[in-house]
Order: sequence, then structure tokens, then C-alpha cells
Amino acid sequence: MYTKKYLLSTLKEKPAQTKTISHQLMLRAGIIRMLSAGIYTWLPTGYRVIKKITKIIQKIMNEFGALEICLPLLQPKKFWDQSGRNKLYGAELIKIINRRKKQFVLSPTHEEVITYIMNYEINSYKQLPIIFYQIQKKFRDEKRPQFGIIRSVEFLMKDAYSFHINNKSLKKTYHEIFKIYLKIFNKLNLIFHVNIADATTMGGSISHEFNAIIPKKNQQKLLKNFNYIQTKEIKIFFICTKNTKNKYPYIALIINSEYQINIKKLKNISIINQPIKFLEIKKFFPKIGNNLNIKNILENKIYIIADTNVKKIPYFVIEKHKNLNSILWNQDIFFNNFLDISNINNDEIIINNNKNHSSEKKIEIGHIFQLNTKYSEMINKKIKNKTGKNTFMHMGCYGIGINRIIAAIIEQNHDHKGILWPSCIAPFQVFIIPIKINKSNLVKKYSKLLYKNLKNKNIETLFDNRSESFGKMFADMNLIGIPHGIIINLNSVKKKYIEYYSRVNNCTKKIKITKIIKFLQKTIK
Amino acid sequence: MYTKKYLLSTLKEKPAQTKTISHQLMLRAGIIRMLSAGIYTWLPTGYRVIKKITKIIQKIMNEFGALEICLPLLQPKKFWDQSGRNKLYGAELIKIINRRKKQFVLSPTHEEVITYIMNYEINSYKQLPIIFYQIQKKFRDEKRPQFGIIRSVEFLMKDAYSFHINNKSLKKTYHEIFKIYLKIFNKLNLIFHVNIADATTMGGSISHEFNAIIPKKNQQKLLKNFNYIQTKEIKIFFICTKNTKNKYPYIALIINSEYQINIKKLKNISIINQPIKFLEIKKFFPKIGNNLNIKNILENKIYIIADTNVKKIPYFVIEKHKNLNSILWNQDIFFNNFLDISNINNDEIIINNNKNHSSEKKIEIGHIFQLNTKYSEMINKKIKNKTGKNTFMHMGCYGIGINRIIAAIIEQNHDHKGILWPSCIAPFQVFIIPIKINKSNLVKKYSKLLYKNLKNKNIETLFDNRSESFGKMFADMNLIGIPHGIIINLNSVKKKYIEYYSRVNNCTKKIKITKIIKFLQKTIK
Repeated sequence: MYTKKYLLSTLKEKPAQTKTISHQLMLRAGIIRMLSAGIYTWLPTGYRVIKKITKIIQKIMNEFGALEICLPLLQPKKFWDQSGRNKLYGAELIKIINRRKKQFVLSPTHEEVITYIMNYEINSYKQLPIIFYQIQKKFRDEKRPQFGIIRSVEFLMKDAYSFHINNKSLKKTYHEIFKIYLKIFNKLNLIFHVNIADATTMGGSISHEFNAIIPKKNQQKLLKNFNYIQTKEIKIFFICTKNTKNKYPYIALIINSEYQINIKKLKNISIINQPIKFLEIKKFFPKIGNNLNIKNILENKIYIIADTNVKKIPYFVIEKHKNLNSILWNQDIFFNNFLDISNINNDEIIINNNKNHSSEKKIEIGHIFQLNTKYSEMINKKIKNKTGKNTFMHMGCYGIGINRIIAAIIEQNHDHKGILWPSCIAPFQVFIIPIKINKSNLVKKYSKLLYKNLKNKNIETLFDNRSESFGKMFADMNLIGIPHGIIINLNSVKKKYIEYYSRVNNCTKKIKITKIIKFLQKTIK
Repeated sequence: MYTKKYLLSTLKEKPAQTKTISHQLMLRAGIIRMLSAGIYTWLPTGYRVIKKITKIIQKIMNEFGALEICLPLLQPKKFWDQSGRNKLYGAELIKIINRRKKQFVLSPTHEEVITYIMNYEINSYKQLPIIFYQIQKKFRDEKRPQFGIIRSVEFLMKDAYSFHINNKSLKKTYHEIFKIYLKIFNKLNLIFHVNIADATTMGGSISHEFNAIIPKKNQQKLLKNFNYIQTKEIKIFFICTKNTKNKYPYIALIINSEYQINIKKLKNISIINQPIKFLEIKKFFPKIGNNLNIKNILENKIYIIADTNVKKIPYFVIEKHKNLNSILWNQDIFFNNFLDISNINNDEIIINNNKNHSSEKKIEIGHIFQLNTKYSEMINKKIKNKTGKNTFMHMGCYGIGINRIIAAIIEQNHDHKGILWPSCIAPFQVFIIPIKINKSNLVKKYSKLLYKNLKNKNIETLFDNRSESFGKMFADMNLIGIPHGIIINLNSVKKKYIEYYSRVNNCTKKIKITKIIKFLQKTIK
């Protein structure tokens, strides 16, 4: 793509009335534009990112066997009266009266509609379990739309609905989707927590929220330099055993996230090396092998000691950390070393506390619910089970906020120059800046040739052919957050070199012209 | 995909209150379900087809350089007051009042909104021409929703908007998009006409409609056995020259579609072979070489004679016919042999007449408009051109009705058993029916192995693993319209054969088990 035929729409200055980094950068990088409070247009750069995220989600959902469908956005209001959610949603529900005076609701979610539809399509327990999903706009008349697309009126959601013959089947699928969500958010490089959530607006019982963490202003680095792994429920510290030639050279200490480790209590545990030194995660993990997932690490190389209070926690998820994938507590790890190692009021180690999880510093990106029989009962839908007994269908629902994922990724990946997209969702993989292209045929020739070759290799490239200064062009490419750059100037071309720029490492490197394609293919991965 | 994990939702009986074949088959094949008048759910089979069509459109639009975006569905009503279209659309426009008493419109189209947005994003003639598109739902409060998704309230559209510094640039892009539309509709195997259309609701000047033809009940075959090519504007007949060793062995006769050829007048033309015999298209084209497009045929191998009245026609499009692509009159073909060969009242050849193009027998699938400066003037948007003069931006808009394309394809491609999807948009490429799978391990083994191999080759396959009779399974696969079938039964498997079924040719063929994958790869193309 040539910038002259593209709509960059970058803004140099910080826009007024923007309270969050993501909102500022989404406006500055030409990702969104506001049309009305809480209502946004997605410009070409933004929509390229949206398409990449939806593709990742669709691929994972399809592999799981979920069936993609498209439900109407206009829903007869009577369904919402029947479910009682018309009152519950109140003014947030957008209502429409058509020319024949029939009342409709503009969808904020689809539990009622899909239950009504499946009433006719599902007739036998043999069809169950079955799961449907769609990626479509949703609407909510927010009282105070704010933070850009984080709290907006019109937004893009992936919503899924599962149907089951009994609660056991629901719980099994719920658990599988729980893990699929971890897979999706990990794939998108998100740092997130999972919380047990309130299910009242949906009308179910068990529910979990997936919350992306918004780092504080100077916390960007901190997130990467923790000496423990933090989730909503727990923290894990790593220390050394006495004898490092041991089968387990390291020990993982797991405690409730609100508690603190009691050093005095640790001193009484014989296998721990004294004096106790907590290992820095960043330096620690590469030592025990990259590309290992935490499950392997914990099960194979590390001795685990958990505080007795940890027993009470039903679930926890370990957030993505460099090469580590998330795991599910009580499902992926099993152990029995529970010891008293914590102290709620102990302030010997204060690194983090629960305030970091207050409502201001997270973005809800996913939410899943076990709805049980609420909606089947609403329409009195029963089907025969294997034994011939009439029974209500059980149901689960599962949402992902696609727009919010983009905000969360930007909050977690940016610097003073702009956005730092993870490669898998960057709007373009490579930018090319030819310097003074109109003054040198050699620069023109090499830059166009490179562009053509990259295009043939299906590497998405933005070629900046504007008549702007290098500084302006370079600033724009950094602001948009294209991970890899190529700078072509006459001097280096004459010497058969071109300059490669890594956005994330903020450094340049000279590469032989003949080797640039292979270098990029290898670097982009 | 296994049918047991899929939602087939086929209906055996013709549904009540359905007036068109496409409506009936879309319900019977589990493609759509009505939620409310004119409001439909797209079930898994339907949504698979939608995704294929959108992918084809996106690919062609992207190659052209159009930029995909996503505009809000909720639009401030003030824009529609400003453009005067609030009154013009009247009761068809769905209106919403939000909790802060602000008035909105639920988008039927986006001319106002995109003009308003681009007012801020386009500041220089250097950014022009530029073209944006989106694929999103649209809404229209139809007075009488009917014919299934053909006249519906909520529907999927591809809408595109182009911006230009002057009318010349608009006309150039308009012409290019005209050709892109031919490419899209040809790719989708549609038989269609292009008509000059009324542009009042959009407020422009020049406009063209693309209308898919709905064949009459017994016209299905006729369409494929014409002895002429028919468009809204013209008909082309082919005859032989006197000396077939001539540089031009054939002659194309082009006349106005409403007129008839006057045989007596033809007799006076010396190069025409006597007695005059019109060549049957189906047999004729293969003779002069398959895979040639009509442009090449007309320009290279065929002498062209056009009736003098043809001069008056500004455009015409030759509909898709087997290996022939559409062409644009006065753009793709140039010639000067105009002779008087027609007779309006001559009934010597009566094959078709203009009644075939009445409103009942076509589906509008595309519509393009030259809007000129209407919307720029509405917001008083001027930009400086090359000479520094302030000038209003010119604009074009271009729609494709994606849901309607599906109805049109079904109208044009079906038989008494169900739908006959063109391969490129079929929900699945192949079905597998294993006969009595639970009674034979051999059948189970071969069918599952074949399914696995097809999956590995990325051939979309529906494996019917229901405990139904062969008749029921086969009828469902035919109804859904999967182009290629594999039937696996014990007897043939023992002999190392399996049965291949061609949906379009309605015939079976025995294929060696070892060769089936290669055979399918070759057959599907």
C-alpha cells in the first residue's frame, strides 16, 4: 500500500478531552474518529487491526467446533419483557418502534433471541451440546460514554451461546471455553487477570471476567520486571533450594494475592536456601529454558509450596509472561504441599497490593456465564434426554469485546513515539521510507523493487511515497506502530546496503540489499 | 464437519407463505430463519455462503485499492435533515431517540456520514481520488417486507464511496468500478443485466443498476440454450460467412434487445452464408475455443455487424455465458460496421422480448451512482485543486446487496432436489455419506480416513454421521447443494472403490480408493 493512496490521518498533537493513553493514540494514529458520544468510525488502519483480531478469534472458535451464525440486530421487544431484562437494562436498552407500531430492541446481547430460535431448531438431546457464535456490532445506551471505545454505545463483540442437555455438559463446555479464552488472549499478547464475576444481568450462576491490566504511568517497565507472577487470586514467588544440584533447584511459593509472604515462616522450611532471595522473573525464566510453558516448569523443575489459604481458591490463571502460557489452577497443576507461609498484615515485602485491580485500572475484555436453565424456562423449552425424561436445556454464554482488546493492547504496548503492535495484529508488518525518492533514480528503483518483492511474499508493507520530510514520515510510521521499517537512502544503496529499523527495540541495523527479503521473513516470523 | 456437531436444520416440506423459489429453498436448506417480518437469522449453512461471497468481494475491492473501513450504524439525524433525505426516505428510515433525547437514524446508507467524516480527513487534492468501502448491515423499514431476504428490513451490504477533485476523475473511477462489478458478478456465476437507473434517492446524475435475472419456471434450461446472447440493451446472434476459410469464419449480428432481426435485410449482405442459420451459443463457443473471452472472440475471429440503432446505446454488458466474461460496450469493443438489419415489428424470430425484464423477474444486486457535488455542497466542503482554486469534492457511491446475491444465485441455480451452488461459494465442497457406518468397521475406517485426508487438504467436507437412512442423508446433501459427494458402502470398499456423485450432473462414478483425493482435487478446482 502506498501512503498516497491510503488514509493515514495521523495527528501530531494530543487530542483534547482524552483521559486514557489508548484513546489518545487511537485518535492520533488514525484508528478511530468520533461521530457522536460513544459512537466511532474505524478508519482503514483501525479496521485492519480489527480484521486481524477477528480472524484469530474465528480460527480458534472454529477449531473448537463452534458454529458461526448471524443473528438479527433488531429484536422484538416482547422477548425482553418475557425475560425481565427490559427492566433490568432500563435506559441502556435502545428501543425502536417501527412503522407498524411494533416495538424492537437494538441488540446489546442475544440470549433471548437465540433461545427463541433454537426452540425450533433443537429437538433432540442428540444435537447437544452445540455452540454458536457471531462477530457483530452491539449497542448500549451508556449513561456516560467515555475513554474512547472502552465505554461506547456501538461496539464490536464476539458472542457465543452453548446449549446442553444437563448441567454437567454445560460445566464441561464452560471449562473448555475458559481455556479457549486464555488461548485467544495469550495469542494476542495480552496481560490479563481472570476474576470470579457477578452474573445478575445475565441471570446465571457461575461467571468469570477476563480483565486486561492497564499499567500505571510508570508501571510499564515494572510489569516486565516483577519478582513474582501476579493474578487476581494469587502471587507466585521463586526462590532457590539449598542444594542447587537437587532434582528441584528452585521452589515456587504460591500465596493468596492479598496476603504477603512471612519471611520468618519461610526460614523454618529446611529445603529453602538462606538468606532468602526472591528471583527476578525476567532473569529467572530464561535460566530454566525459554519456550517452556509454566505448567512444565512447575511440574518438572520446580518444587511447589502453596500457602494453606490457597486451598480455598477454586480457580486461578497465571498471566502471560514472555514465553509462558496461562494455566488453569486445579486443572493443569496438582500438588499437595500446603504450608503456612503467609501473613496478611506482614509488610516485610510490599510490592503490589489489591488496589492495582480497582475498576480504574483494568479493561474487561471477556466475560463468560453459566446461565443454566433461565432462558429455557422463560420459553418453557424442554427436550427429552436419553432416558426419555423431559428436561430444560442448559445454556452458557461467552463474550469478547473486540474493540476493547485493541484499547487494552495499546495500553499495554506503547511508548512516547506511539503504538507498539504485537506482530500478529499490526496493521502492516513493514514500512518503507525512501529518502528523497524524487531526486534519485537509484533510491526509487530499489525501494519500488523491494516493495514489489515484499508484496509477492505476502508481507503487508506500507510504502511512504509522500513528499514529506524524513522526520515526519518516520514519526508517522512510529506512531502507527508498524513493527519493522526499511529506510532507503542514496549513500547506503550505493554501498549495496539498506537500513532496517526495529520499532520495538528502537534500533537500526545495516542489511545487505541482497539479503533483506530473507532477513525480513526471518525477523517477522 | 460432522453433521452431528452441525446444525443442518433442513425442512422436508415446502414452507407456507413463500412466493419465491429462493425463499423456499433458503428455509428448507437451513440457510435462514425469520425472527420478525423482514428480519432474518443466518444459520451456519447460510453464514458459510455469506462469508465466501464477502471474501470474494473484499479481495477484488482490495486489489482495486479501495480501503475497508467501518462506519457507525447509529447516525445523528441532523445529517439527514441537512441532506433533505429524512423527508425523502420518510417512514423507511428507522429513527431512535437516545437517553439524552438526541435523535439518531439506523443506517440505510452512509453518504451523509462519510462526507461529514472526510470533511476532516481529506484536506488536499493530493489525497484524491480515494475510495472507501465497508461490508455491514443496513436497515430499511420496508412497507411490505417479502420474498424472504429479497425485500427485508435488516440486510448485509457492501457499500463504497469515492471522492474526487473533479468530475473527470469521478467518471474514470465510476467506469473502473463498473468493470469491477462485472468481475464480481461474473466470478459469482450470476446471469445479470445492467440498466441505466434513476438516481433521485441518492441525489446524483448518472446511475446504473445491476439486475440478476430470475428465470421463469421452465426457463431454467432456455437460459443455457439460447441461440443469442441477451442483455437489457442488446442481443447478439452468430451466423456463418460464405467462405469458412475466410479470416473471419463467423459473423456477430448485434441489435437492440427490443428489436428483431429482419431476415430479408440480411439476405442482401453479400458475405453472409445462405440460407441463414443462427448458431446455438452452447455449441458455437466451444468451437471457436474455450476460455477465450468474448472481447477476444469479437475482435479476432468474428466479423461484427451492428444494427444502426445500436449506435444510440451508450453502454451494454454481455452477460456471463460459460467461459465468456462480460464486456463493456464502447470501451472494450470498437467497430464501425453499422447496417440496417433490424425490424421492430418483424416476427420472423421471436425468442424473447422485453417482458422478460419486468420488475417481477429480476433482483437488484448492485447499484452505482455518480453523486457529483451534492453532499460536498451540503456540508460546504471545498478543497484547493492543483491550480489553487477552491472546489467542491465530487463523489460516487457503489452498493452490492450481499443477501440478495444469495437469493439470485439460488433462483438461477436449483433443481427439484434443492440448491446447485457454484463451487466458489458452496457451504461445503464435498459431502461424505458412509452407509451403515455402525455395522462395518471397514466403512468406518475408510470414511474417517478420507474425511481426515480431505481436511488436511483444506477441502471443506461435511461428514454425515447421523443414524439416518441413506435416502434421508442423500436428500439433505442434495437440498443443501454440496457440489461433490462421496458415498461409501461395504461392497464397493471391499473392491477398493468408492462412489463419487456430481450434484450438478446428477450422476455417479466409481473411483479407485487410492485415487479419490487426486480426483476430488482435480474436480473441485
